[in-house]
Amino acid sequence: MQLKSRHLLGLEGVPREDIAQILDTAVSFKNVLERPIPKVPTLRGKTVVNLFFEASTRTRFSFELAEKRLSADTINFSASSSSVLKGETLKDTIRNIEAMRIDFVVMRHSAPGAPHFLTKCVDAVVINAGDGAHEHPTQALLDMLTLREKTGKLKGLHVVIVGDISHSRVARSNIFGLKTMGANVGICGPGSLIPREVEKLGVTVYSRIEDAIAEADVLNILRIQLERQKGSPFPSLREYRSLFGITRERLDQAGKEMVIMHPGPMNRGVEIDSDVADGDHSVILEQVTNGVAVRMAVLYLLAGGRGKFEGEDHE
Amino acid sequence: MQLKSRHLLGLEGVPREDIAQILDTAVSFKNVLERPIPKVPTLRGKTVVNLFFEASTRTRFSFELAEKRLSADTINFSASSSSVLKGETLKDTIRNIEAMRIDFVVMRHSAPGAPHFLTKCVDAVVINAGDGAHEHPTQALLDMLTLREKTGKLKGLHVVIVGDISHSRVARSNIFGLKTMGANVGICGPGSLIPREVEKLGVTVYSRIEDAIAEADVLNILRIQLERQKGSPFPSLREYRSLFGITRERLDQAGKEMVIMHPGPMNRGVEIDSDVADGDHSVILEQVTNGVAVRMAVLYLLAGGRGKFEGEDHE
Amino acid sequence: MQLKSRHLLGLEGVPREDIAQILDTAVSFKNVLERPIPKVPTLRGKTVVNLFFEASTRTRFSFELAEKRLSADTINFSASSSSVLKGETLKDTIRNIEAMRIDFVVMRHSAPGAPHFLTKCVDAVVINAGDGAHEHPTQALLDMLTLREKTGKLKGLHVVIVGDISHSRVARSNIFGLKTMGANVGICGPGSLIPREVEKLGVTVYSRIEDAIAEADVLNILRIQLERQKGSPFPSLREYRSLFGITRERLDQAGKEMVIMHPGPMNRGVEIDSDVADGDHSVILEQVTNGVAVRMAVLYLLAGGRGKFEGEDHE
Repeated sequence: MQLKSRHLLGLEGVPREDIAQILDTAVSFKNVLERPIPKVPTLRGKTVVNLFFEASTRTRFSFELAEKRLSADTINFSASSSSVLKGETLKDTIRNIEAMRIDFVVMRHSAPGAPHFLTKCVDAVVINAGDGAHEHPTQALLDMLTLREKTGKLKGLHVVIVGDISHSRVARSNIFGLKTMGANVGICGPGSLIPREVEKLGVTVYSRIEDAIAEADVLNILRIQLERQKGSPFPSLREYRSLFGITRERLDQAGKEMVIMHPGPMNRGVEIDSDVADGDHSVILEQVTNGVAVRMAVLYLLAGGRGKFEGEDHE
Repeated sequence: MQLKSRHLLGLEGVPREDIAQILDTAVSFKNVLERPIPKVPTLRGKTVVNLFFEASTRTRFSFELAEKRLSADTINFSASSSSVLKGETLKDTIRNIEAMRIDFVVMRHSAPGAPHFLTKCVDAVVINAGDGAHEHPTQALLDMLTLREKTGKLKGLHVVIVGDISHSRVARSNIFGLKTMGANVGICGPGSLIPREVEKLGVTVYSRIEDAIAEADVLNILRIQLERQKGSPFPSLREYRSLFGITRERLDQAGKEMVIMHPGPMNRGVEIDSDVADGDHSVILEQVTNGVAVRMAVLYLLAGGRGKFEGEDHE
Repeated sequence: MQLKSRHLLGLEGVPREDIAQILDTAVSFKNVLERPIPKVPTLRGKTVVNLFFEASTRTRFSFELAEKRLSADTINFSASSSSVLKGETLKDTIRNIEAMRIDFVVMRHSAPGAPHFLTKCVDAVVINAGDGAHEHPTQALLDMLTLREKTGKLKGLHVVIVGDISHSRVARSNIFGLKTMGANVGICGPGSLIPREVEKLGVTVYSRIEDAIAEADVLNILRIQLERQKGSPFPSLREYRSLFGITRERLDQAGKEMVIMHPGPMNRGVEIDSDVADGDHSVILEQVTNGVAVRMAVLYLLAGGRGKFEGEDHE
């Protein structure tokens, strides 16, 4: 039980079987998480460094929980309290961490490719927890797990990703993963936020949200990253909401229900309205719950899929 | 062995039996803490999030120690490194943490009632570690444990709380707890820092510290929160000290000894002089020691009072 | 198996036998770290506080790893999130931590002597992780372990420390430790950065790097602390490099190889060139690896050298 790659840097090029195996293993871990003591000794004695160069709540929490439930030792690193302040190069920071015999590094960085660079410096297994606008593979995996649970399939499903596609690592990882699993993927957002030549990835581009809604089984609504829009050719928030915001009214006009996803954190009243976010078809909190199980599965499989893991029960 | 409430949000309305049970259980845990390995497996596999929206050393440390000595997994959250920066609502932050299947949330927040709000969003057990000027129940519990140890009783004891009563969650929780346990409670401070209609809580108001000292068995001296006094009708520090500062001279004039308490951090030379803080009748460091045992007791009882806890020996 | 001192505050005055015992014990722990589960239960139930008043990556990481591999409970404290902000005295912060029954405090502070002061306030065992320009004993111990491994001896070895000697706790601890172990120690750097009367410590002062290189078996190259040089009589970085920078060319001229050490973080292209730092004779990453083992040994021995520690195999 082993993945093709030693690391999880992105979903581009990851084979169908590996994605399926991660999702199946995550289902097993969901059973573990239902036990009175939701903990397994799989990674006992292994050390995981959470190397976060960007602020994060949910992703760091989710990884830290996954690591602790696998009985790993975890060490947190955040850029502000470190030698980065002293002008050390990223490479030296990393090599030093490596020299301390770390088993896993979970890395978030604003530079696309930073985790790939890391794999060239260290022997540790590297998991990308988001690198700039490039990839965020565990987010896409938890999105797929949630969708598979909710709809029973991924193949043939019509998923539309809505928002700032150009700057979104979540969008990119979802596109790669969903296409591999046989889903139909669309994207929808302001023209200035749609990457050029994106059709080459095999996605349908919708410029009107109404058209997207008409065809979608699932809307994956991205966060409008207010902090990244300064000086960009971005419409005002009011204009964004009026053109692309997912409101109850827009969904009602479609005359059908669809699954509502959001990777968080949400800007309620901007890209998504509260009655949609909290509605019956929202799986936003299931996504969060599944995040822990997916990250346990990734750590477990990258550790070689060995070790004590009682109660295994694949579906 | 279970408390009336699922959460510990404050001491207002908590019945006598529950307070007594927490104090008794804390005594048992003090015995545990004397062992060579001061640790019990009670909360093994349980996860506690320390959700601190305000800076804190001693309270966060004390809770973290209590959690680790109960073998819980702990995750720390401080507001500065989080999605709060990204404009997420408190409710969404909390629901996300909840979706990760947390068992306990220990929360400090500047807004009174924030932990109560939390209980409406999440299934986790919530412990208030201080909410604005509202309550700080574990502080009052450790104060009562310390007093009971030192004097052998709470009933009939004369406790005067000195300082900025209006802004003090410590004062409020102490008033509720001590009154429930049958103590006589007085308060003393500048008129501008005494809440209106405070007599309705059944406390005696002293405007002169000399009068308070004359009647008190115990002085619980609050920290003058320098950082909160900007622009308030507060006397200068020099004036405060001359009118209300607890000095050796003032205590000597009373012609009797009394127990000296302070929740920390102290402003030595302002609300309390060093020879008082470090004197024979000071129990300030005992308060800190008892804090860990009280928090272990609260976590243990809110977890249902079950689980392995060898060496139990109630007094 | 016990050290002469209860604490590790510096290497000044530490007897030869104690240093040898720490290095021997560290070798045993290196074997532990090669096991599939590199963990021993030696400090189970013991609590270590990492009390860092200055930013640090590698030292905090290294201690935290050492503590976790000894199964201690660790609590991290960084000055920015603490009561220090509230104006509490260092002594009160420390006494409060003490009152929580901490077993070990690992302290970094900008004030020389801060850890010594700490030992007067608390019962806990104190380990100095760097105090101003005074001492950094675990760094010197890991340097000595690395040298002993690489060269087979310390006695008679010619070690030259290069850089800003005046402001360097690493230099001071190395001088004390190496002299005790019988090595010959030289120092080399700009005249303004050589402490007055340093010869009294029994070291040779070189004003020209070429002279130092000619005699050295080992160069221990200090970091130029850019952040400390503002307004000091320090040459420009370019001038520093041209006079004292360790370049491949300078080493080649010596016509012999020598061991290259650096405590990190490095300023590549200033005090050391990349081809030297990454060259065959560099032991810079071995230093980092040895740091964890040395810190495990120090913690273990200061804990009394008792407790479970299977696989002990002294060399």
